[in-house]
Amino acid sequence: MAKAARSKLNEAPRKMTAVDYGDLANSVGFLLRRAQLATFAELIETLAPLKLRPAQFSVLVLIGANPDVAQSDLSAALGIQRPNFVAMLDELEARGLTRRCVSASDRRSNQLALTAEGRRVLKRALELHSAYENSIARRMGTNGREEIARVLSKLADLNPVA
Amino acid sequence: MAKAARSKLNEAPRKMTAVDYGDLANSVGFLLRRAQLATFAELIETLAPLKLRPAQFSVLVLIGANPDVAQSDLSAALGIQRPNFVAMLDELEARGLTRRCVSASDRRSNQLALTAEGRRVLKRALELHSAYENSIARRMGTNGREEIARVLSKLADLNPVA
Repeated sequence: MAKAARSKLNEAPRKMTAVDYGDLANSVGFLLRRAQLATFAELIETLAPLKLRPAQFSVLVLIGANPDVAQSDLSAALGIQRPNFVAMLDELEARGLTRRCVSASDRRSNQLALTAEGRRVLKRALELHSAYENSIARRMGTNGREEIARVLSKLADLNPVA
Repeated sequence: MAKAARSKLNEAPRKMTAVDYGDLANSVGFLLRRAQLATFAELIETLAPLKLRPAQFSVLVLIGANPDVAQSDLSAALGIQRPNFVAMLDELEARGLTRRCVSASDRRSNQLALTAEGRRVLKRALELHSAYENSIARRMGTNGREEIARVLSKLADLNPVA
């Protein structure tokens, strides 16, 4: 055992060899996924001080931009399945950030709104998010941001189109 | 119960209201995620006839482009955790698509290669993948593809740089 351990210590560090990405090097699908994984990990870190996950942040932003929005419209717009969305709202409501009320015009539908605390947390989150977006924009180069936003919008298939 | 069922049938279809994406509408991070989710779902469908998941496809492409690549270099290049990568290789090997052999120069490291069947499946997968990439390129507009690939590469943080 002592010999094995010593042999391990004496091992030269393994040299990393450059890998050819082949047909993936210019694959938009592959680059999208890699870019998304890299930037999403950063967003998780960015929002961690507020104990918000990216999906929770998106929900707060959209409720903020659409006061009294119908619950079903919001889950459709964000592509979140109904049971997951209900669980998310339960958590946000337990933390005092959002509230649901039954629509007067359509009793089948809940309307969503931010509480005062929800607005306060959203304001802070938007500041952190803005710094995160600026950091991404810097890496993309000065002219990249608007062009990429335009092109990504075509792929993103946002629903419904506002 | 009969009354409740009839009442359900008579309900007008719920009208979908356009939702304002607010600060997310121009967020590169949000658009990247949405674009990635949309295109990834398409890639899963594209490769389904070959019973390949996107990650398995990436592994075949990279082994094809790097004959006898070290297992550890490949998992690092694709950002796949070691235990997950071992399970993937077990499955690809059981299907007769890839093989591992111990490197003559470094016995700590497995070298990976495609079998003849692996090359055949990869060739077919690359044809399907090429059609998928062309479909994405069409939606992005004629001039979008190279520009977006360039910008995404800066965000994607590919490792190691070939």
